[in-house]
Order: sequence, then structure tokens, then C-alpha cells
Amino acid sequence: MPIVTIQVTREGTAPGASSTTPEQKAALIKGASELLRDVLGKPMESTFVVIEEVDTDNWGWGGLPALDYRKKLAAFAAASSR
Amino acid sequence: MPIVTIQVTREGTAPGASSTTPEQKAALIKGASELLRDVLGKPMESTFVVIEEVDTDNWGWGGLPALDYRKKLAAFAAASSR
Amino acid sequence: MPIVTIQVTREGTAPGASSTTPEQKAALIKGASELLRDVLGKPMESTFVVIEEVDTDNWGWGGLPALDYRKKLAAFAAASSR
Amino acid sequence: MPIVTIQVTREGTAPGASSTTPEQKAALIKGASELLRDVLGKPMESTFVVIEEVDTDNWGWGGLPALDYRKKLAAFAAASSR
Amino acid sequence: MPIVTIQVTREGTAPGASSTTPEQKAALIKGASELLRDVLGKPMESTFVVIEEVDTDNWGWGGLPALDYRKKLAAFAAASSR
Amino acid sequence: MPIVTIQVTREGTAPGASSTTPEQKAALIKGASELLRDVLGKPMESTFVVIEEVDTDNWGWGGLPALDYRKKLAAFAAASSR
Repeated sequence: MPIVTIQVTREGTAPGASSTTPEQKAALIKGASELLRDVLGKPMESTFVVIEEVDTDNWGWGGLPALDYRKKLAAFAAASSR
Repeated sequence: MPIVTIQVTREGTAPGASSTTPEQKAALIKGASELLRDVLGKPMESTFVVIEEVDTDNWGWGGLPALDYRKKLAAFAAASSR
Repeated sequence: MPIVTIQVTREGTAPGASSTTPEQKAALIKGASELLRDVLGKPMESTFVVIEEVDTDNWGWGGLPALDYRKKLAAFAAASSR
Repeated sequence: MPIVTIQVTREGTAPGASSTTPEQKAALIKGASELLRDVLGKPMESTFVVIEEVDTDNWGWGGLPALDYRKKLAAFAAASSR
Repeated sequence: MPIVTIQVTREGTAPGASSTTPEQKAALIKGASELLRDVLGKPMESTFVVIEEVDTDNWGWGGLPALDYRKKLAAFAAASSR
Repeated sequence: MPIVTIQVTREGTAPGASSTTPEQKAALIKGASELLRDVLGKPMESTFVVIEEVDTDNWGWGGLPALDYRKKLAAFAAASSR
């Protein structure tokens, strides 16, 4: 009876995609269900998986909206490599 | 001060509806609040109810996206009744 | 496939109880599952209910820990009724 | 490694806005991250903040959808002040 | 920046264990993080995994507390196989 | 009507404390409620704050249980500073 909730930012990670694709979602569902089966012996039919997509404006990291924080990290990395 | 969170797939269950209707949402809110009042004596005005609608692609069951799993269950049921 | 999550403070509401009793939990589970069946037609066997009990220190309302806020409300009510 | 989840109704509170503005979201993210830093010493870069916007139809209070309950409170307040 | 929340009942699935063991928890954390890396390319160091253990009294399925529902399912299966 | 959920690991950050102290919890509740008041104008009395404390075994980061990942980070930092 496990419930696995996967929260990700609403953005594409596959070429040309602007958000998580149906194929990626199916892979996340399959993988998470199999993980609970393999580690805890939970039957696949008693596992729920819920994927929550969150706008990047709505996700904060390092005190900033996600995209701004990524820019900050990138700038820091660039400065460190000079 | 209870919080009741109701997660359902974004699909219609009323005739002609493609998702949960405002009337159904109001009934869920009323019913959940009354349940906490009747069982635990919690005043209605101190209970929050949050309804989260989840796209069917984003809900996994049996290792598959919800709609695919339902097809699998239906096919299994049909085969068993032959 | 609904999931109903019920968050309540860890305190007794039944005589002599210091937290929600097993009987009350069973009544919450039954009531929540029947609510989803009656309003949205969801089969009982495909509904999960999760009850989360939260220490009163860990629940804030009105900017205060729950028990302190209740005292504030009670004092306010007493003052208003003089 | 804290996670702060902020659930608010999807409505505007800034002049002319119909929902929480990007600037308000950034202020919520900054404030929540600083709160965990100042109270628990958690580094900003290890704090996630997730803002969930909920349609007003999907938020219940006092056994009613939010907007209906606000009307009820307003009517009550008006009646009490006569 | 994904967050994976895994909710399971507080019971043992390994021999002699009364709840999920530290080794099983580490395997769930590793597996969930690798799943997000492999499917969505998310770096391991930006994925949080939170495991929530729920008392069996606090988990409802089929309108009953989990252990009662399992007994019901077992009795049904036994009756069907006669 | 906001709900702010703060998830932190169950460990002490104040001298001699093994988990978040009541005073720290009260400060988190006050700060989170004031944040919603100051940014979105939400009245303090309509904001719930829920603090969830998670065992360090139950929190994963970088594919490892939290304490193991911290050791890994510390070792990496030490090696980089030689």
C-alpha cells in the first residue's frame, strides 16, 4: 500500500519537451513501483505513484526562485573556473 | 484544526463532466468537514479541506499510468469471465 | 484511486484518551472512503486514507503553537462576555 | 535540508493581480529560507521551498468552498455590527 | 531539485524486523534518486527523498484499517479457492 | 487560509538539544505566519503551520541517508582543501 509522490519542476528534460513527457512519467511510475516491490516486497497493484509538476516560479532553492538560483550557481562556477 | 487533503485524478465522474464538478467539490468539502466534526468533535470553522486534482498521466497504479492499468484490469476481468 | 490524508493534532477527543483512538481512526477511514464512493463513485477498495497525527507543539495557528492560541482565544472570549 | 511547502488559494492579493505574482513568490521563497536559516541555522542552499496554488473551488473552510465561507463570515460580521 | 516522498506502513518486511530497516531505507533512497537521475537527468545531489512511516491503524484501505482489510482479502481469497 | 508545512530532520540545532526545541518551533510558527501576512496580507488567525520532523535515516540526499551524505560532503571538502 505504499504511496510514492514525485515532485519535479514543470520543465522539459527530453529534447524539444517543455515538460516531463508521458513516456518519462510512465518510466517514473514503473521505476518507483518496482523499487517498492524489490526493496520491500510490495505488490505493484497496491502501490500508488503521484507525480506533481511545479512551475519553476513556485520552486525555491538557495532563497531564490529555481531558475534564478541556477543562474547564480552557473555564474559562480564560471567565476571559479577562471 | 484538522486539514483534510483529497487527491483525485482529473476526470469526470458526473455525466458530461471532464473533471470533478463544483457541486461535487462542495459535497466533498461538506462531507469531510462533517466527518471530522462527528468523529472528533472538531468545529467546522477550524477544518481546512484541500482538493488536489491530478492528471491521469501523473497517477500511477500497478506500475502503469492509471488509464493503462484500468485497461489491464478490464482485459483481465473479461478474460476471466470467458 | 483517491488518497485522503487527514492531519490532526495528537490529542484525545474521546473521554480519557490522550490521542485519537483506534475506533475513531476506523470511523475516519470508513467515513472518508464512503464519502469518495458516494460523491465520486470511487470503489472503496481503490481508496487509501492516511491519518497523520501532529504534536500540538508542531501545529501553529494564529502565529502561535496550537495550545497557546487556544488559550488566547479562550481569554478573548471570556473578556468579551464580561 | 528543510522543505517548506506553502499552500495558498489561487487568487490575487496585489492590486490588479489574479494570482500570486512572481515578485510575491520570490519574497515567500526568500522569507521562508531565511526563517530556516535564522531559527535552525540551515544553509539557504540546502532549503527547498515549494508553493502550491489551489483553486478557490478546491479549498474548503467551515464546510464550504472558500469563497462561500467568506461571504458567510462577511454576512455574519455585518449582521453583528447592526 | 526533485522531492520523492515515500509513504509506507510501519511494519517489517525483512525477517525479524518490525519496521523498515536502515538498510531498506538506504536502498529506497538510492533507488529513488537513481530513478530521477536516469529518467529525468536530475543530479543525485539535488534530489531529496523523504520516507514517512505510518502506523497500520492510521492507514485505511477498502474502508477499513489496513490490517483488517488484509484479513478481509485473505478470507475472500480462501473462500474463492474452496 | 494558507497552510505552511515545514519538514526538517529530527536533530538538534540548539546547544544540547537532540531535536528542534519548543522555542524554535514557536519561532518557526511565528515567522511563517508573519511571512504570509506581510507578503500576501493573510490574517495570522487563518494560517496553519505544520512542522514535520523526519528521522535522519528517513531523509535522503545525494542518493544516501542524510548523515552519510554529510560525511561524504565533509570528506570531499577536506580533500579539496589540502
